Amino acid sequence: MTTLSLSDPLFVTYVVAATLVILKAVSMSWLTVVRMLKEKGGFRSPEDIRKTPFNPDPSPQQLEPNDRVERIRRIQQNDLESLPYFLVAALIFVLTGPPLLLAQILLYGYVVSRLVHFVAYLSAQTHDMRAMLWTPGSLILIFITLWSLAATVL
Amino acid sequence: MTTLSLSDPLFVTYVVAATLVILKAVSMSWLTVVRMLKEKGGFRSPEDIRKTPFNPDPSPQQLEPNDRVERIRRIQQNDLESLPYFLVAALIFVLTGPPLLLAQILLYGYVVSRLVHFVAYLSAQTHDMRAMLWTPGSLILIFITLWSLAATVL
Amino acid sequence: MTTLSLSDPLFVTYVVAATLVILKAVSMSWLTVVRMLKEKGGFRSPEDIRKTPFNPDPSPQQLEPNDRVERIRRIQQNDLESLPYFLVAALIFVLTGPPLLLAQILLYGYVVSRLVHFVAYLSAQTHDMRAMLWTPGSLILIFITLWSLAATVL
Repeated sequence: MTTLSLSDPLFVTYVVAATLVILKAVSMSWLTVVRMLKEKGGFRSPEDIRKTPFNPDPSPQQLEPNDRVERIRRIQQNDLESLPYFLVAALIFVLTGPPLLLAQILLYGYVVSRLVHFVAYLSAQTHDMRAMLWTPGSLILIFITLWSLAATVL
Repeated sequence: MTTLSLSDPLFVTYVVAATLVILKAVSMSWLTVVRMLKEKGGFRSPEDIRKTPFNPDPSPQQLEPNDRVERIRRIQQNDLESLPYFLVAALIFVLTGPPLLLAQILLYGYVVSRLVHFVAYLSAQTHDMRAMLWTPGSLILIFITLWSLAATVL
Repeated sequence: MTTLSLSDPLFVTYVVAATLVILKAVSMSWLTVVRMLKEKGGFRSPEDIRKTPFNPDPSPQQLEPNDRVERIRRIQQNDLESLPYFLVAALIFVLTGPPLLLAQILLYGYVVSRLVHFVAYLSAQTHDMRAMLWTPGSLILIFITLWSLAATVL
């Protein structure tokens, strides 16, 4: 039985992968902030065009979608459709006691696939390229989930 | 005390419900892919109308919202507003050591309610019907969360 | 080693913070329901303007974005970009065995910061104010994640 202890290498693998995934996710919020500040736009609430110290020269155009801000929001949404599920699926997966090497390959592989997908999305690579880089992460998520279900019911 | 071991029936209940929920969630991503391929549209990034092997005949219309793709995106968003919270709430719930039968009814009931809600949303049933099918899942989520809070502070 | 038992004060801290966060998140769904009912609008699916007992007098305007409903949707989206990650990060954090007082300050601090942010967003305070109230929660999330990663790899 896997223990939730930092002396259990399966749990360590999970914690490293999960914390990297969470840091990646949180970075998207800050990247949105940075881009909104630089673009002085891409806001979404009517009150965001009130005059304030951070927005001394407001205009209605600031509420229109801004390409550079919307790109980060799409990346963040893409994260949301996968990362929260991975964080739980990976925890269950390590609790089923898989071989350590397999867990390391799959969990770290997921982290790497998401980081490479992020770079491709940020730099506006083709849809084909983005799809190709998104697929391994999704397949890893499906695999660890099916593994956990099989380990439990079989 | 509930143990996170596959020999503990409460944890088994959680793993079965959680993995089914995750598989359901991930299926929405692939259903979006299938519909985008079939409709040859419903894309969202400007670079998605570049000419590529998968998109040999691009046009600006491909970036307009596509009804069949948007439906899956709405379902996926509805999932996001509930499933990640359920996955954590249900884990905490089984750790409070509830009666096994109660846990099975609530956790499997949630899974079933989400699957039926999905079918109703996909087949464009009325808003009333969809709301009626969404409600049990939401109430189960609230119940297991309140139960866990009560078990902890009382 | 922290145990996932209700007799372990670190786990109790986690459960209290996590259940409050989940209840907050689920409330947004119900607040959306309440506002859609009051506004008789802010719907999103074409089938939502069919005549039904709950919508006896449908009109195409009901599918247009409604300011009061969209505000709750933006708050809910803001939750989604943080809460699911916090729920996992905080669990990992307590499992690394931090000082109890530190865990209480950070986890309850996160809950309070999200509730205050919600009030500010709901009442349409300035973007500056909202940003200022959002920041502590995000920094706590980053801090507990980096702490957990450091505790594991160092």
